[in-house]
Amino acid sequence: MTANFRSDNETPVATAILDAILEANHGSAWAYAEDDWSTRLDQAFSELFRTEAMVLPVSTGTVANSIALATITPPWGSVYCHSGAHILNDECGAPEFFGNGLRLVAVDGEQGKLDLATLEQSVYASEGHGVHSYKPSALSLTQATEGGTVYSIDEVSTLCDAAHAMGMKTHMDGARFGNAIASLGCHPAEVSCEAGIDMLSFGASKNGCMAAEALVIFKQSQWRETAERLRKRSGHLLSKMRYVSAQLLAYIENDRWLKMAGHANRQAAKFGAAVDNHGRANLEFPVEANEVFVKWTKEGFDHLKSQHIQFLLWPGRDDLARFVFGHSTTDRETSFLIDSFEGMP
Amino acid sequence: MTANFRSDNETPVATAILDAILEANHGSAWAYAEDDWSTRLDQAFSELFRTEAMVLPVSTGTVANSIALATITPPWGSVYCHSGAHILNDECGAPEFFGNGLRLVAVDGEQGKLDLATLEQSVYASEGHGVHSYKPSALSLTQATEGGTVYSIDEVSTLCDAAHAMGMKTHMDGARFGNAIASLGCHPAEVSCEAGIDMLSFGASKNGCMAAEALVIFKQSQWRETAERLRKRSGHLLSKMRYVSAQLLAYIENDRWLKMAGHANRQAAKFGAAVDNHGRANLEFPVEANEVFVKWTKEGFDHLKSQHIQFLLWPGRDDLARFVFGHSTTDRETSFLIDSFEGMP
Amino acid sequence: MTANFRSDNETPVATAILDAILEANHGSAWAYAEDDWSTRLDQAFSELFRTEAMVLPVSTGTVANSIALATITPPWGSVYCHSGAHILNDECGAPEFFGNGLRLVAVDGEQGKLDLATLEQSVYASEGHGVHSYKPSALSLTQATEGGTVYSIDEVSTLCDAAHAMGMKTHMDGARFGNAIASLGCHPAEVSCEAGIDMLSFGASKNGCMAAEALVIFKQSQWRETAERLRKRSGHLLSKMRYVSAQLLAYIENDRWLKMAGHANRQAAKFGAAVDNHGRANLEFPVEANEVFVKWTKEGFDHLKSQHIQFLLWPGRDDLARFVFGHSTTDRETSFLIDSFEGMP
Amino acid sequence: MTANFRSDNETPVATAILDAILEANHGSAWAYAEDDWSTRLDQAFSELFRTEAMVLPVSTGTVANSIALATITPPWGSVYCHSGAHILNDECGAPEFFGNGLRLVAVDGEQGKLDLATLEQSVYASEGHGVHSYKPSALSLTQATEGGTVYSIDEVSTLCDAAHAMGMKTHMDGARFGNAIASLGCHPAEVSCEAGIDMLSFGASKNGCMAAEALVIFKQSQWRETAERLRKRSGHLLSKMRYVSAQLLAYIENDRWLKMAGHANRQAAKFGAAVDNHGRANLEFPVEANEVFVKWTKEGFDHLKSQHIQFLLWPGRDDLARFVFGHSTTDRETSFLIDSFEGMP
Repeated sequence: MTANFRSDNETPVATAILDAILEANHGSAWAYAEDDWSTRLDQAFSELFRTEAMVLPVSTGTVANSIALATITPPWGSVYCHSGAHILNDECGAPEFFGNGLRLVAVDGEQGKLDLATLEQSVYASEGHGVHSYKPSALSLTQATEGGTVYSIDEVSTLCDAAHAMGMKTHMDGARFGNAIASLGCHPAEVSCEAGIDMLSFGASKNGCMAAEALVIFKQSQWRETAERLRKRSGHLLSKMRYVSAQLLAYIENDRWLKMAGHANRQAAKFGAAVDNHGRANLEFPVEANEVFVKWTKEGFDHLKSQHIQFLLWPGRDDLARFVFGHSTTDRETSFLIDSFEGMP
Repeated sequence: MTANFRSDNETPVATAILDAILEANHGSAWAYAEDDWSTRLDQAFSELFRTEAMVLPVSTGTVANSIALATITPPWGSVYCHSGAHILNDECGAPEFFGNGLRLVAVDGEQGKLDLATLEQSVYASEGHGVHSYKPSALSLTQATEGGTVYSIDEVSTLCDAAHAMGMKTHMDGARFGNAIASLGCHPAEVSCEAGIDMLSFGASKNGCMAAEALVIFKQSQWRETAERLRKRSGHLLSKMRYVSAQLLAYIENDRWLKMAGHANRQAAKFGAAVDNHGRANLEFPVEANEVFVKWTKEGFDHLKSQHIQFLLWPGRDDLARFVFGHSTTDRETSFLIDSFEGMP
Repeated sequence: MTANFRSDNETPVATAILDAILEANHGSAWAYAEDDWSTRLDQAFSELFRTEAMVLPVSTGTVANSIALATITPPWGSVYCHSGAHILNDECGAPEFFGNGLRLVAVDGEQGKLDLATLEQSVYASEGHGVHSYKPSALSLTQATEGGTVYSIDEVSTLCDAAHAMGMKTHMDGARFGNAIASLGCHPAEVSCEAGIDMLSFGASKNGCMAAEALVIFKQSQWRETAERLRKRSGHLLSKMRYVSAQLLAYIENDRWLKMAGHANRQAAKFGAAVDNHGRANLEFPVEANEVFVKWTKEGFDHLKSQHIQFLLWPGRDDLARFVFGHSTTDRETSFLIDSFEGMP
Repeated sequence: MTANFRSDNETPVATAILDAILEANHGSAWAYAEDDWSTRLDQAFSELFRTEAMVLPVSTGTVANSIALATITPPWGSVYCHSGAHILNDECGAPEFFGNGLRLVAVDGEQGKLDLATLEQSVYASEGHGVHSYKPSALSLTQATEGGTVYSIDEVSTLCDAAHAMGMKTHMDGARFGNAIASLGCHPAEVSCEAGIDMLSFGASKNGCMAAEALVIFKQSQWRETAERLRKRSGHLLSKMRYVSAQLLAYIENDRWLKMAGHANRQAAKFGAAVDNHGRANLEFPVEANEVFVKWTKEGFDHLKSQHIQFLLWPGRDDLARFVFGHSTTDRETSFLIDSFEGMP
């Protein structure tokens, strides 16, 4: 058999989501997000997050992140993020494009997490030169992190408090937000709006949807116009938005998103345990969501490849690889991976 | 009954297109347009246009137009388009955003079509001031036009030759390209690449797809990098692009796109004939594609509304309305419209 | 002799202004507009305009205009200006560049002046399509106009009231503001801040300075940060700003600016009268400031050229020319022009 | 007495430069850099650099740097520079503004100099992810560096070769280029164009001019249009450019620039020697141009302040200060500084 652990971006669409698309496909519907599905999103997400939430449905995480950051950051403002952040490394400058030349500032931190002291030091270092410097404007956290770890409620809260105290707004890149919540077992509001997050890129594409993400604005209704203008102006206001919004509604209905994410997390945990127990391989980060980073030998990884197992060798490294588990990963695929892995001591 | 002639943007997805989506939904696939569907587009469209064509699948016409224009126009370049063009009036400045402040120059012309003499006059008027002026860089034609008319092969050819002679590149906004080809009955290449069009926004969403457009670059392979960078940077490189590309492949397969467009055109023609024969109503433009612009009385339009017929009263006018016919418009709906219309002499 | 009436941009620096530069050239001074000259500008211009005014010294009218417009207009906002405006035709898109893709909308009007009804019609025509359209955001008037005419206090007031009523802010391009005030004989505040102008590009370079313009913000102190950021970010915060500010202080001291502008206006008036009395030549516009637009024969203009008289033949025309008079134009030069002109009946 | 060592930005204009301005102030001259001074620059700088050079006169180093970088870097391109570079820390994102969201990448290195291995490592780390990453496009070196050190010919040559080999273009921020050449004692071409520099921001304002910098393009004539468009579009094409160009011509005439820079360097060297010989103070960097960075005690710096000596305490530090020497620094001022310094053991 073959098994693909390269990325949850490569997974198919979950049946329940496809069904929602099919159901939405009857008759005509108002264009440009004025349809019956899109206009229900505010209410649905306000309930999900038990606070006033405004939602812009969009197709990619990159545009959700970019609109969010460009809404809360002037062109001469800087955004602080982890040095491994997707917005910094994998979006070809989309935040800079939407934000007309805003600047991203990389902040190091262990296990994929921003460290408070390092953040504060970095902000202070770039202040004090007035109009000659960028103005610290936003903090962006990734949850779950790029290392597959998960910020605790306290960690998010502490970082957001510090950011607000320094005059900044806060954004969460939740491309794998479902995996984080399934891991924490908390209410989704606790680690986002209630912990001080102002805008959330609520990801769904990686976890069972086709091309659907919700840009969620908490309480700050004055940001809506800017966000909507940016969506239109960047070509992201789909004429047939009903098909995106129908996905999002089905995704959060009946905890479907958490069930899918929980499944992925459990598969990751099984492999993580196997790595932990292996004599020669090691976990690069604790396995807290749906990703497993493995330090191992080139021979070991070559062996897995020879078994038609697909994964990501870290760029420039032959001793580190990433395995991602998705909503569609089967027990059989995971077992096959574990068996192949354990078969190469 | 009710019937909706407001916009082809409001139509559902055609069954054959949905089926293609469902078929694409098996197992994992490479992300970011490296999947088996996306990588077949260049070949498929090269055959369709019987020349070397490169295709970027995207989700909206606005982004296709904007990437095209920003690829062939520097920030200090100007794009000449009809004063009724979608890029000018309905995209909230997306071309200016993607093009970092390029300028659109409106050129008047009857029946929704650019006039050669007016175009040349407009270009000459803005030249001659060197670095102080914008540099005429691109011509953008809409096919079918915003008035529901269709440029002939000769008309496109003449305008493109003039544009090239003035040092400009050429773009066609083909949001309703299928309707134009079905109307002309010519080969799609004849009125695009072979007539001098350099880049084409090949629309599909209005004519049966969910959210799928093909940005087609003819021959000029050196433009690919810029176009691809702009797509990524604007958040339009979908991770699960297979679902867009599968739509496009199904759309052009077996002349499906022309059959759907032809159907819409025929419905429009029937209503157009009814208007033409009506004693008090008049056609604003000749009916050549799938749109009918009707000049009539307020009472007449009110009557249609009372019959639950939906259409677009032109902004700021109560004597002009637009009726759009789509792939999903039924004979019964068209008959109902005609009957209601004729019932109000 | 030769005489140059091509543009007031070509005049030398007035002696009093040069003296001010020389006086400022002693010892060290704080850089970046924190020097003793720059920090006096707010007070000096507040007195000049008898209201709270904030001033950013800059080097060109283009940057003053661009910062002003970008401060009061979002990237998805439109600026309404006369179809002959400098910001539209002669700045290579600087407003679009500073404003990240804002749009300029040309409004026609006789004698170089915006017409109220045409303005309102133009704004209404572009509204009503919500997020799909640009948002009308600013009105920009040129005073004196590009046609050498001067808006009356009432005209400015009426247009500003209308703009404010439509939710727009107002800007005045005062590249020749001194000529306008000298012509009107009113207090400078009457036709600017007191008539409803929010931001003024107070020109000085054309009227005796070397490279000095004052961007004046009336009352709206909240705009200061954006304007200052844009100045720095565009490379216009000179390290040795004292030399610009010293020019501006000397320029407005003792009505020096009005004396120089009045001189230029009087020279223009003399030539204007000669044209008016000439049998075959005609004035294109009333002569109200320092520019004279003459409709005449090719032979006539050729004759002047043969006399080594320099002026601007209007681009694409051989029967229209512009003559500009400056602070340094001598009676002798004007007489020479008039004699040459009258010598060719 | 008082003495100001805070910045060479605070120095007055040298007499010879002022004289050149006065000489240029006779009669009218073509506007917008078509005057007799501006049109001589290409030739004058081609001789100075003994190669084909094109020159754009501008008013600030920030705009020279920004036009240069935006000309050789696409919006999705990255510019590698030292972590202490002015373009990174002191220009409020001007390069990002002119470059429509290009990215600056900080590279560490001792003594203010970029290190080859670190540069290569940094470039390699950001490659390999195709369209998802920024494209390494330019290297920017500062000469003399922000630490007051000077790159040797070999150092520049090695870094430029590496940059070119990696497909990048090269820029030199020569805000203190005169000080560097005076220090190296080499021909100006040896450490710029002949060492592989493609574009040079040739600074003059800090070293005796009023507001004058030359953006020098070596050989690459195809870049001229972009650079000129950016200059106009950013409001930096002065109408009365003759006054800037006259400064530049006088500046490079008769080695005037090297004499002024050499004077400043010698003053710095004297103080540097005093610091080196001091028991408790230390030099942070070798003194190679006109800046001296001193590590000392708070008491020591307080003592100098009490003597009315002005200098820059490093932001966030009370044990590090910068002293800058200029063309106008007198022997008496330097002696006063040294005496005050040595009087506090």
